[in-house]
Amino acid sequence: MAIDRERLEFLKRDSVQGFTQFIGLTPVSLKPGEFTTRVKLEGHHLQQDGFVHAGVIATMADHTAGYAAYSLVPEDQRILTIEYKINYLQLAKGRLLECKAWVLRSGKQVLITEAEVYSFIGTARTLVAKAMHTMASVPDERVTQRKRQRPSP
Amino acid sequence: MAIDRERLEFLKRDSVQGFTQFIGLTPVSLKPGEFTTRVKLEGHHLQQDGFVHAGVIATMADHTAGYAAYSLVPEDQRILTIEYKINYLQLAKGRLLECKAWVLRSGKQVLITEAEVYSFIGTARTLVAKAMHTMASVPDERVTQRKRQRPSP
Amino acid sequence: MAIDRERLEFLKRDSVQGFTQFIGLTPVSLKPGEFTTRVKLEGHHLQQDGFVHAGVIATMADHTAGYAAYSLVPEDQRILTIEYKINYLQLAKGRLLECKAWVLRSGKQVLITEAEVYSFIGTARTLVAKAMHTMASVPDERVTQRKRQRPSP
Amino acid sequence: MAIDRERLEFLKRDSVQGFTQFIGLTPVSLKPGEFTTRVKLEGHHLQQDGFVHAGVIATMADHTAGYAAYSLVPEDQRILTIEYKINYLQLAKGRLLECKAWVLRSGKQVLITEAEVYSFIGTARTLVAKAMHTMASVPDERVTQRKRQRPSP
Repeated sequence: MAIDRERLEFLKRDSVQGFTQFIGLTPVSLKPGEFTTRVKLEGHHLQQDGFVHAGVIATMADHTAGYAAYSLVPEDQRILTIEYKINYLQLAKGRLLECKAWVLRSGKQVLITEAEVYSFIGTARTLVAKAMHTMASVPDERVTQRKRQRPSP
Repeated sequence: MAIDRERLEFLKRDSVQGFTQFIGLTPVSLKPGEFTTRVKLEGHHLQQDGFVHAGVIATMADHTAGYAAYSLVPEDQRILTIEYKINYLQLAKGRLLECKAWVLRSGKQVLITEAEVYSFIGTARTLVAKAMHTMASVPDERVTQRKRQRPSP
Repeated sequence: MAIDRERLEFLKRDSVQGFTQFIGLTPVSLKPGEFTTRVKLEGHHLQQDGFVHAGVIATMADHTAGYAAYSLVPEDQRILTIEYKINYLQLAKGRLLECKAWVLRSGKQVLITEAEVYSFIGTARTLVAKAMHTMASVPDERVTQRKRQRPSP
Repeated sequence: MAIDRERLEFLKRDSVQGFTQFIGLTPVSLKPGEFTTRVKLEGHHLQQDGFVHAGVIATMADHTAGYAAYSLVPEDQRILTIEYKINYLQLAKGRLLECKAWVLRSGKQVLITEAEVYSFIGTARTLVAKAMHTMASVPDERVTQRKRQRPSP
C-alpha cells in the first residue's frame, strides 16, 4: 500500500529533529511496529570515564521505541512516553551505536515497547542496554492544546 | 573539612564534560549525597511536538543522581549506572529545567538514588519527571582496565 | 462529607479479598490519595534464606498504591496496574511490614503512585523497599466486559 | 555432568518453600540460566475484579528469574533481588499461569534477567506480563551474617 509506505517515510524523516538531530540520530529502517536507528559516536557523546553516556543510550532507546509505536497508530494520534526502565549491560565504546525497537503490545491508548542498543567496535556487535517503555497514544489536538496553554518563556 | 569541600568542588566541575557539556548541563549545588543541576532550554532540546525531549530529562536525572552518589564514595571509586526507571508526569516546556537528586540508600557496592526534574515557565515550577536509579560503585582500576581492553575504533 | 467517608471505608474493606486476604494484608488508614497497610509476618511469607520474599513486599506496595489511586477516581472507575518498578533496599525480617503509598500525579486516565515498605523489628523501623507505579483508571464496564469475554476454564 | 544435574535438581526443589509453596508455585524445567514454573490458579490468587492479582504474577516472575540466575553462580553464592520492573500486558484469567525466565547478562556480582508470564485459558496461551530484574550474587556467609545480626522478634 503506497500510503503506508509514504507514512513510514514521513515518520523516518520526522524522527530526526530537535534533540535527536542534535545528537546525530539517523534512521536505518522502519517497518510497522519496528524501528532501527544509529548514532555515529563522537567525543561529545561520552561521559567522564570515556564511555558513551547513559543518556545517549537511553535517548536512542526511548526515541526509537517511540517511533516504532508511532508507526502503528492513526495519523491523528501522537506518541508520548509515560515511563521506561533501562538496564545497562556493558560499558559502551566504539564507533557506532545501533538501536532496534519493537512494539510488544499495542493497545488503543497504551503501547508497550522494548528496545535493545548495540555498540560496534570494528565489526563486533555487543548488546549494551535493554529498555522497556510504556507509551501513550494521544489525540493530536490534546497535545497542541497543551502547547497553547503553556506559552514559551 | 577543607578536603571535602575541595572534593565536592572537583566533582561539580567534573560533572560537566562530554555529553553533559554538549547538552548544556550546569551544576548548581553539591552536598554529600545531594546534587542540583540545571539546563537552560533551547530549540535543540525539543522533540517533534515542541516539548523537551524525554532524553534530555532522563540524562539530567541520571547524571545528577550519579554525581550525588559519587560524592559519597571513596576517591578511588567510580560510579556507573546499572539501571533506572523514569516516569514523565507532565510535558515539559519553558526556559529552564532543574534537577534535584539524592541518595536513598548508600551501600558499599550498590547505591540507590532518586531524582526529580522540574520545569520553570516564568517563575512557576512544575514537577515533570521522577526517576529511581541503581548505581554501582566500582574500583577505578576496573573501569580503566575495561577502557584498555576495548580500544577506540 | 459523610459520603466520602463511606467511600473510603468501603475501599478499606474492599482492599482485603482474594490474594491480599490470603497473604494477611490489613488496612491501617486511608485518606484521599494516601493508604497505609500492614502484614503480620509468618513463616509462609519467607524465601529460601529466611527473609521476607520480594513478592510479599511487591504485592503490598502495588496493592496499597492501587487503592491510594482508587480513592481519587470516580466510583464507576476501576484501577488496574499498568507497570511498576521496585527497589529492595534492605533484606526484610521481623514481626511486621508496613506500607505507605501515595499518589504522585493524578490524571484522568493515568495515575502515578509511590510506595515505601518498612519492616519492624521490635520497635525499630527500617525502609526495606521503594516502588513507583503507573496505574490506569478504567471505566467499570470495560473491566466487566473483559471478564465476560474470557470465561473461566 | 552428573554434579550439575544434581545441582539443578536441588535448585528446583529449593525453589518451592515459604512464600512460593504458599502460593502454589511448581517448577517445570530448569536449565543453566533458564527456568520455567507454573501456578494452578485458585480463588485466593485473584484481585477485586476477579483477575489474577498483579502480586502473584510479579512473585512468579521475580522468583523464576532469581532461580534462573541461581543456576549460573557458584554453590557458595546466594541470589538476592536488587530491583525489577514489570509491565502488565493483559488482565490475567484462566486455569494456569506459566512463567519463563532467563539470564540476559551474567556478571560476577550482578545478573540481569528477564521473565515472561503467560496465562492459559483452555489451551490458548496469552502473554500477560514481562519483567526485567537486576539480581545480586552475594557470598553465602554475608547473607547468613545479616540473619544473625537481625534476630527474629
